[in-house]
Amino acid sequence: MRLLIVGAGGVGSAAVRIAARRSFFDHCVVADYDVARAEAAVSSVDDPRFASAALDASDAGAVEQLCRSLRISHVLNAVDPRFVMPVFTGAFAAGAHYLDMAMSLSHPHPERPYDKIGVMLGDEQFAEQDRWADANRLALVGMGVEPGLSDVFARYAADDLFAEVHDVGIRDGSDLVVDGYEFAPSFSIWTTIEECLNPPVVYEKNRGWYVTRPFSEPETFNFPAGIGPVECVNVEHEEVLLIPRWIDARRVTFKYGLGNEFIEVLKTLHKLGLDSTKKVRVGGVEVSPRDVVAACLPDPATLGERMHGRTCAGTYVTGLGKDGRPRATYLYHVVDNAWTMAEYGSQAVVWQTAINPVVALELIAAGTWTGAGVLGPEALPPRPFLDLLTEYGSPWGIQEL
Amino acid sequence: MRLLIVGAGGVGSAAVRIAARRSFFDHCVVADYDVARAEAAVSSVDDPRFASAALDASDAGAVEQLCRSLRISHVLNAVDPRFVMPVFTGAFAAGAHYLDMAMSLSHPHPERPYDKIGVMLGDEQFAEQDRWADANRLALVGMGVEPGLSDVFARYAADDLFAEVHDVGIRDGSDLVVDGYEFAPSFSIWTTIEECLNPPVVYEKNRGWYVTRPFSEPETFNFPAGIGPVECVNVEHEEVLLIPRWIDARRVTFKYGLGNEFIEVLKTLHKLGLDSTKKVRVGGVEVSPRDVVAACLPDPATLGERMHGRTCAGTYVTGLGKDGRPRATYLYHVVDNAWTMAEYGSQAVVWQTAINPVVALELIAAGTWTGAGVLGPEALPPRPFLDLLTEYGSPWGIQEL
Repeated sequence: MRLLIVGAGGVGSAAVRIAARRSFFDHCVVADYDVARAEAAVSSVDDPRFASAALDASDAGAVEQLCRSLRISHVLNAVDPRFVMPVFTGAFAAGAHYLDMAMSLSHPHPERPYDKIGVMLGDEQFAEQDRWADANRLALVGMGVEPGLSDVFARYAADDLFAEVHDVGIRDGSDLVVDGYEFAPSFSIWTTIEECLNPPVVYEKNRGWYVTRPFSEPETFNFPAGIGPVECVNVEHEEVLLIPRWIDARRVTFKYGLGNEFIEVLKTLHKLGLDSTKKVRVGGVEVSPRDVVAACLPDPATLGERMHGRTCAGTYVTGLGKDGRPRATYLYHVVDNAWTMAEYGSQAVVWQTAINPVVALELIAAGTWTGAGVLGPEALPPRPFLDLLTEYGSPWGIQEL
Repeated sequence: MRLLIVGAGGVGSAAVRIAARRSFFDHCVVADYDVARAEAAVSSVDDPRFASAALDASDAGAVEQLCRSLRISHVLNAVDPRFVMPVFTGAFAAGAHYLDMAMSLSHPHPERPYDKIGVMLGDEQFAEQDRWADANRLALVGMGVEPGLSDVFARYAADDLFAEVHDVGIRDGSDLVVDGYEFAPSFSIWTTIEECLNPPVVYEKNRGWYVTRPFSEPETFNFPAGIGPVECVNVEHEEVLLIPRWIDARRVTFKYGLGNEFIEVLKTLHKLGLDSTKKVRVGGVEVSPRDVVAACLPDPATLGERMHGRTCAGTYVTGLGKDGRPRATYLYHVVDNAWTMAEYGSQAVVWQTAINPVVALELIAAGTWTGAGVLGPEALPPRPFLDLLTEYGSPWGIQEL
């Protein structure tokens, strides 16, 4: 396996550190628009299999060319979701297999964004399904932690724990705090705004996909491992688009444990138009308000040392168990920031995202996971994934509710 | 009286429209950095006494020169408080009398902004008291509605209604709403942030002036004329610095009826650093986050047509009445936006600010109000002011509580 990791940000750099401990690949090139970032990611591990390169991820032709010249077999896309399509397209053109951790972006319905479905997450990628299948190439999309591990959990529950699945609810929450800041998100504020202010999508078997208002259906979910109750709300997320394609469920939702404070911040940014990416004129210059918000906050990738607490990703499934009786189970993965910082020098949120595509690549390299076309993680057998995750030193958990 | 109005924004333009109906002055020049704004203000009234000029209010020398060349007797400062000192200094140098509606800016204590007094509102102006008095020139500072009319109310209560004054609490609230916007402040957001996020100052007779945290001492005040209850919090404001200089009171506060929603918006802007005036780098440009916030919101001066409701300014006084018994009285002034738009084409908040310096100028022209040095409105006899305000068609009210 000759791997290209596109993007040497928090997630890409953590993936390098995780992969360096494994032997399943032969060569791995880390590419970034800012080649110094790629070099830094490579030099953080002492491993001759790694090299760095400069790459503009918005240029599909450049992605194709780099893949060809380096004879890349598999591309792991670890850049901002804005660049999913050029990396996906460039990898295909070069004949490589492809993995990402977020799907092509949605576009709300232009007139009635909260009533009608527009372009959904991943629509542009699934439109290419036949071409990928015909070329016998695998595009494994949404293969981070959420989407990713959360989808694997859903498939595992559907296969091994339930006779009949009613609700599949992804629930994400943490008790992470960052010392020394009044407000410091542990994940990209740009992406958080994008996820949280887009109309959330919900799936129901009898109705199909539909959109709701941002922050709809608030629910206090009691997270395990001492994290405790966190207010969760509907957020647009890939699992809702992926899971119904492979799993027979009555209803699929994604709720993000933003907590009250973060929800109020996002609502206020929206109310004031500060979430907008459309440039405004200020004095003699033009800027995107959302970029200004990001510039005022600390870079989450640099906050690992000041952060403490745990983050939990998981899938809450209800329905009838194998014995035919009602069952409600939460399958989850908890990561402690103190542990990821000590073991890998990566903060918990980016590390938890990065480990999953590395596990998936190892399963692909071993031939345990095979397939062609555009597939979600729930299209593949879940148990080998969960076992290998545990072998990596980061076990998952299960709780009956 | 030969008058110079510096600033043709919302307040300056409303002052032109109000003054044009009165005969107490001979000539009035309206000056602005943007001469087109000054010309627009002048052409909104058909009155040969008015003329326009270009002026950079940040340049004291330019203010002096314009006053001299136009033989100005009285300067009305109607620009942003950032420019108080150059206009004040320039007027003095030219031998003119001076009025403003906001005093020189405060500077929080550099190390302990919420524990220790720094430079207070008006400190820089009161430092010039002797020079103004010796030159027999009057600087009537804080002569808008708040400060201004609110100080006149305090003096009137102390003279005519109370034997002993305990608390003087300025309370400002409204039920103004702006149609068609999720969030649209009816007053400059830049100035509102400045007022509300600076440490609020409180006066107590036994303690002197001291600072508190922003939004301290929340209180729901029931405003008259159907406005009803509004949540008010301590805000840094001139009255607290002015009233104790002339009126014997145990405690003086200013509470602004921001309402819960506005308070949360301001807290969020502060938490994210978006209130800052210090420039941040965004892509290839540098901008002040507070300027970006202002650029994302509609210009309040343009909102009069879409606004409806009433705004109330007033002074709540407690103590012992002339009969020696406990008394609690709210003296207030309510303005309805529908009326100011119909009568003057100005929105209620700027109009309510503008009428007061015009009334004061008329009292000065008549010789009813005389004085030298740096004086607040409470230094002068209140009854003639209140009577003339009523004669202008905008009566005040009184309510026992």
